[in-house]
Amino acid sequence: MIEAALVDELKGIAGEENVLISPEELLCYSYDGTVLQHLPEIVVLPRTTEEVAATVGLANRERIAIVPRGAGTNLAGGTIPIKGGIVISLTRMTDILEIDTVNMVAVVQPGVVTARLQAEVARQGLYYPPDPASQKATTIGGNVGMDAGGPHALKYGVTSDYVMGLEVVLPSGEVIRTGGKAIKNVTGYNLTQLFVGSEGTLGVITEITLRLIPQPETSGSVLAAFADLDDAATLVNRILHAGVTPAVIEIMDRMTIQTVDDYLQSGLPREAAALLLIQVDGVQAAVEQELRVVTQLCRDNKATMVEVASTPAEEAGLWKARQSISPSLTRVRPNKLGEDISVPREAIPEVVRRIQEIAKERELPIVIFGHISDGNLHPNILFDQTDPEEMDRVEAASGDIFEIATAVGGTLSGEHGIGLLKQKYLHLDLPEGTVEVMRTIKRALDPHNIMNPGKIFPPQ
Amino acid sequence: MIEAALVDELKGIAGEENVLISPEELLCYSYDGTVLQHLPEIVVLPRTTEEVAATVGLANRERIAIVPRGAGTNLAGGTIPIKGGIVISLTRMTDILEIDTVNMVAVVQPGVVTARLQAEVARQGLYYPPDPASQKATTIGGNVGMDAGGPHALKYGVTSDYVMGLEVVLPSGEVIRTGGKAIKNVTGYNLTQLFVGSEGTLGVITEITLRLIPQPETSGSVLAAFADLDDAATLVNRILHAGVTPAVIEIMDRMTIQTVDDYLQSGLPREAAALLLIQVDGVQAAVEQELRVVTQLCRDNKATMVEVASTPAEEAGLWKARQSISPSLTRVRPNKLGEDISVPREAIPEVVRRIQEIAKERELPIVIFGHISDGNLHPNILFDQTDPEEMDRVEAASGDIFEIATAVGGTLSGEHGIGLLKQKYLHLDLPEGTVEVMRTIKRALDPHNIMNPGKIFPPQ
Repeated sequence: MIEAALVDELKGIAGEENVLISPEELLCYSYDGTVLQHLPEIVVLPRTTEEVAATVGLANRERIAIVPRGAGTNLAGGTIPIKGGIVISLTRMTDILEIDTVNMVAVVQPGVVTARLQAEVARQGLYYPPDPASQKATTIGGNVGMDAGGPHALKYGVTSDYVMGLEVVLPSGEVIRTGGKAIKNVTGYNLTQLFVGSEGTLGVITEITLRLIPQPETSGSVLAAFADLDDAATLVNRILHAGVTPAVIEIMDRMTIQTVDDYLQSGLPREAAALLLIQVDGVQAAVEQELRVVTQLCRDNKATMVEVASTPAEEAGLWKARQSISPSLTRVRPNKLGEDISVPREAIPEVVRRIQEIAKERELPIVIFGHISDGNLHPNILFDQTDPEEMDRVEAASGDIFEIATAVGGTLSGEHGIGLLKQKYLHLDLPEGTVEVMRTIKRALDPHNIMNPGKIFPPQ
Repeated sequence: MIEAALVDELKGIAGEENVLISPEELLCYSYDGTVLQHLPEIVVLPRTTEEVAATVGLANRERIAIVPRGAGTNLAGGTIPIKGGIVISLTRMTDILEIDTVNMVAVVQPGVVTARLQAEVARQGLYYPPDPASQKATTIGGNVGMDAGGPHALKYGVTSDYVMGLEVVLPSGEVIRTGGKAIKNVTGYNLTQLFVGSEGTLGVITEITLRLIPQPETSGSVLAAFADLDDAATLVNRILHAGVTPAVIEIMDRMTIQTVDDYLQSGLPREAAALLLIQVDGVQAAVEQELRVVTQLCRDNKATMVEVASTPAEEAGLWKARQSISPSLTRVRPNKLGEDISVPREAIPEVVRRIQEIAKERELPIVIFGHISDGNLHPNILFDQTDPEEMDRVEAASGDIFEIATAVGGTLSGEHGIGLLKQKYLHLDLPEGTVEVMRTIKRALDPHNIMNPGKIFPPQ
């Protein structure tokens, strides 16, 4: 229990209206994008770096656990306050401090919603590519904390590829800065990338300097269906070896196609083994040439259907199926567990087939879709959380999927993080010596283990 | 002094022929690409990870300093064994273990020469973009240790952008692995990027997994001269905002142009304030459109000369001037100190002009050239190392340059590292709190301070 005197001290730091203690309010900060839940003891909503620093300093003095949190869309349980303690919600630090169009850099507070930043920079002819599916809700701070990805990774990279510098409140309450506006920077250790994706276990990020790039002139898309999964997979390599790097290549497996078609009733090829959505972007002449190359390669690789979209309206039509996956799933079962295994591209057909076998063995609907060009797949296990026996099978299927991913040289998480959900599988992916180096860094920077304790690393 | 018994133990580990102790041989490992020098006590040339691990384990047990070293082309004194001790030369670990054309990944030992890897992957239609000027001599291990850059950074990134995974011998002698072949990977802390650019102070890198990309179909180049530095600088932004991201944009200032023209006698525009070399690459149609856009923007931006090259032979002709900078400099003075400050792009005209003023004030020839699109400039101070009074002025000019770079929000080093030469300027760039976090990590991972001691951080 946090004592009343400390609550008063926190109110003195952040203002009474920015410290939440009522059960109703605490409830809102007890869950995230998973089915896990745990109540915090108190929620602080700071508006400045100084308020964050004072809150963290107090927590360090009193040895109280802190969980930094953006919009709470986390899919790995990373923002669940399992030790109670203080949730620091960064959602009131929402200033876009600067959009520097010459150096192509944005400086933002952590609570800025990703889609808002994207819209603001687009108005200046600039582009911030990382676009997790939750971009209309997630914050940049949350994206940085988890190193969120999205479908553009092969051509454009993920969040970490755009983070040039950070302001971080250390567990001691001290404020440091890393990196800056220089594109190339090798002065000292790369602390920026150590904090990115550290899931709030090393400090609270209070300001982010992001690289922007010029907006591509135009884009075009191709939708292609394949009777054979291998033809879809080898197509990706043929496209890349033809010198074309698409902005996006998404895959939907048969069960995903059928689930979406049940929902949209749009006449998708229900018997296809795989549907690929390929988007190219760049200058007009490049897009035209690349669309021709991609279309021809689809046909050469036995596509059973090829549709091309070269206007924004046509593209929106083609992409509707992909964007309808999420809403279509709740028609099958009320809950879902979306994994984000990331495997070497070559292993994709094998991994998809083996997950389809697991679905049969465990008697669970599993839809498989994701970012085939970078090997990041989203097997979504569909279930009903009120059925304990089904939950056991979900747990088992989840373990099976991680075993397959790591056995082919892949990793547990391509973009969601480890949080709580995946820590018991960490040994499948990382040798103990590697984990021990991570623990050593955690102990050195957070000796009292106040920063998001119990996350990433399994209990020892 | 390392005792005879330890020398024998090292010979037992690596083989007698791979342990060097004669003064003549030690001399070869006493210098790097700078004018600094210090003799090691012993050089070990291991052929396997196990031999590296045993050597490091011995050094840790005996508290002997270790300096890992590739080809020794370091430009910051990073590989000078200032504490004597053991130099571990990785130049006998030269296997390209795998070029995986489907997943577009190469796995290499640290001693592989960069240009050799580039040639090998090019034969498979693949591309490894990082190309430090020393690429024909430098090793991948050295590039990773320093996070070497090159002219392609804006479009293609630097070495760190291509490192997917590492095998590292820790200071304890334990071997760990980080990352792997999955393009997206957020499982645990990003240890890979902590080791990249850590200048051999955290461990010895013994294997590197590198991302490759498809070879661009074709390329084309534009050479343009400008009477006004600002016109050259604003052109870069106009090109980028037109949706064209060139593979390379290099700048040469007036003194560089004249020095190269004295050497080549090729009729360069000697009175221009700046010469820009712009290369675009991609599919044929894109290159054609982008060359038209760039040429037009050069004319719109008051270029006094514009030459276009669209065949490999024509391109080689245009690039001859850029490639002749280095050999041309020794005609002016026998020695050079090549800095690699990296600044926000917008600051470039101001930085160039201020460095030109310093050259006058300090009465030293300083040529300025570099990678204008990413803000990484190479002011090269030319001098005669046998003149102690001139050396004092070189030192002073060097300090002036770092003050200018950091004052405009830039950094000390974009691609060479801190090593010995820049550590006394570290405080200009990084706040003490940030440096202390780096030192904390160093202490935690290397408690006996055996790994390249005395580098990056100034003595306390």
